[in-house]
Amino acid sequence: MSPASEKLTLVKIGGNVIDSDAALTRVLDHFREIPGKKLLVHGGGKLATHLAGRLGIPQTLIEGRRVTDPETLRIAVMVYGGLVNKTIVAGLQARGLNALGLTGADLDLIRAERRNPLPVDYGEVGDVKSVNLRSLLPLLETGVIPVVAPLSHDGAGRMLNTNADTIAYELARAFAPTHQVSLLFTFEKSGVLLNVNDETSLVPEMNEGFFREMLAGGHIKDGMIPKLENAFRAIRGGVDEVILGQAERLPELLSRKTGTRLYRD
Amino acid sequence: MSPASEKLTLVKIGGNVIDSDAALTRVLDHFREIPGKKLLVHGGGKLATHLAGRLGIPQTLIEGRRVTDPETLRIAVMVYGGLVNKTIVAGLQARGLNALGLTGADLDLIRAERRNPLPVDYGEVGDVKSVNLRSLLPLLETGVIPVVAPLSHDGAGRMLNTNADTIAYELARAFAPTHQVSLLFTFEKSGVLLNVNDETSLVPEMNEGFFREMLAGGHIKDGMIPKLENAFRAIRGGVDEVILGQAERLPELLSRKTGTRLYRD
Repeated sequence: MSPASEKLTLVKIGGNVIDSDAALTRVLDHFREIPGKKLLVHGGGKLATHLAGRLGIPQTLIEGRRVTDPETLRIAVMVYGGLVNKTIVAGLQARGLNALGLTGADLDLIRAERRNPLPVDYGEVGDVKSVNLRSLLPLLETGVIPVVAPLSHDGAGRMLNTNADTIAYELARAFAPTHQVSLLFTFEKSGVLLNVNDETSLVPEMNEGFFREMLAGGHIKDGMIPKLENAFRAIRGGVDEVILGQAERLPELLSRKTGTRLYRD
Repeated sequence: MSPASEKLTLVKIGGNVIDSDAALTRVLDHFREIPGKKLLVHGGGKLATHLAGRLGIPQTLIEGRRVTDPETLRIAVMVYGGLVNKTIVAGLQARGLNALGLTGADLDLIRAERRNPLPVDYGEVGDVKSVNLRSLLPLLETGVIPVVAPLSHDGAGRMLNTNADTIAYELARAFAPTHQVSLLFTFEKSGVLLNVNDETSLVPEMNEGFFREMLAGGHIKDGMIPKLENAFRAIRGGVDEVILGQAERLPELLSRKTGTRLYRD
């Protein structure tokens, strides 16, 4: 990253925001206020599971992870690539932002390969192979706001399901050589908490050295470990900062009044 | 249209192609071979009706036309904007075309207003108010192939259902000032037939004068009348030619071996 490169804010929102019309409205209102180039990555929420239930499509979990059989993939493409994506795009257009909804297949943005079925076959799931910003970079220059669904393609005509966190990190890394990237990675919690049940135990910022110490000391547990490993991988890949916190507090996250900011040494 | 303006081929495909994987494969193979700038508009096919049936959502018809209640709109956004659109986009990417799936909300492409509920309330249906090619024109210059779903937005956050034929004609007219537009309007028949049961009665070409004569003579009937009225409206709006015929015979339509070509006087 050159110090002169332009700032890009990438916001990842998850199911907790998508499943609530009121929360989504507030988050899109906040998102509008972010200055400069920006991009939104969304997860899927409970709609896909709900729709699978109504259609009587059994959902298989292996070690807590969903298996994407072909019918479940079709639902993911409908719900993530269609309903959720276009709800957000239309909502941003209504706020005067020139949004463009994308999956990994559109503009060949994200290519993936179907995950090896051994040792565990998770089905139509894609591991990202490459991110191609060739068509997207000039669009950003003209004020277009990409809205990216958690779907990739294999380049051979097949759509694949890819975790929204992964999409957000891969995009952030791909933009890093040309932009000063802030990744706002939102989830249920206020940030990294020393005590998961105590929101006042928030860690305001950490570099990777501090993270390794906390990890060794047993202060970081469970689902936070892969989140932070991914975040520091993005930072090692050139991303300027990753801010973890709640989507509904986007302005305070940006002004560093809340959340955990991960930064480079 | 200036004679020097560049050629743009706009292909509209309907449900008969979308509902068959084999037909869609052949049509996308043919579409790849069309030289120069091109754009694809697709209808919805039977998938949406099928999904509504599986979900137990009753479909209301008034005088043969479907009413788009809010649940039916959600299905349209999922199926047209998600599954059908991304299946085509991934299929074109696999053929080396840099496809970009769009609804009317993406890049603010097609704004519509909800149709007046009087005298008949067709629900969440949009009548096109404006087409905005500002973001699309530079993309076409770089070889991007737009794939447009039959959905518009109202600019206030609401998606709306809009007939694919209408989308195709409105886009063709919007491109006419800057491009020499050929609209390949595909459907079940070989073209305009003097006798609907006799494929050898195909009319190879007609201008509007000839159409009016045939209409007065009672030679054009039923569903063909609005199709041709729309086509000549597009031609009066500056579209160079409209070719009516079967999607699976795209190469022969382009080389004028089949189909009906409508042209300006």
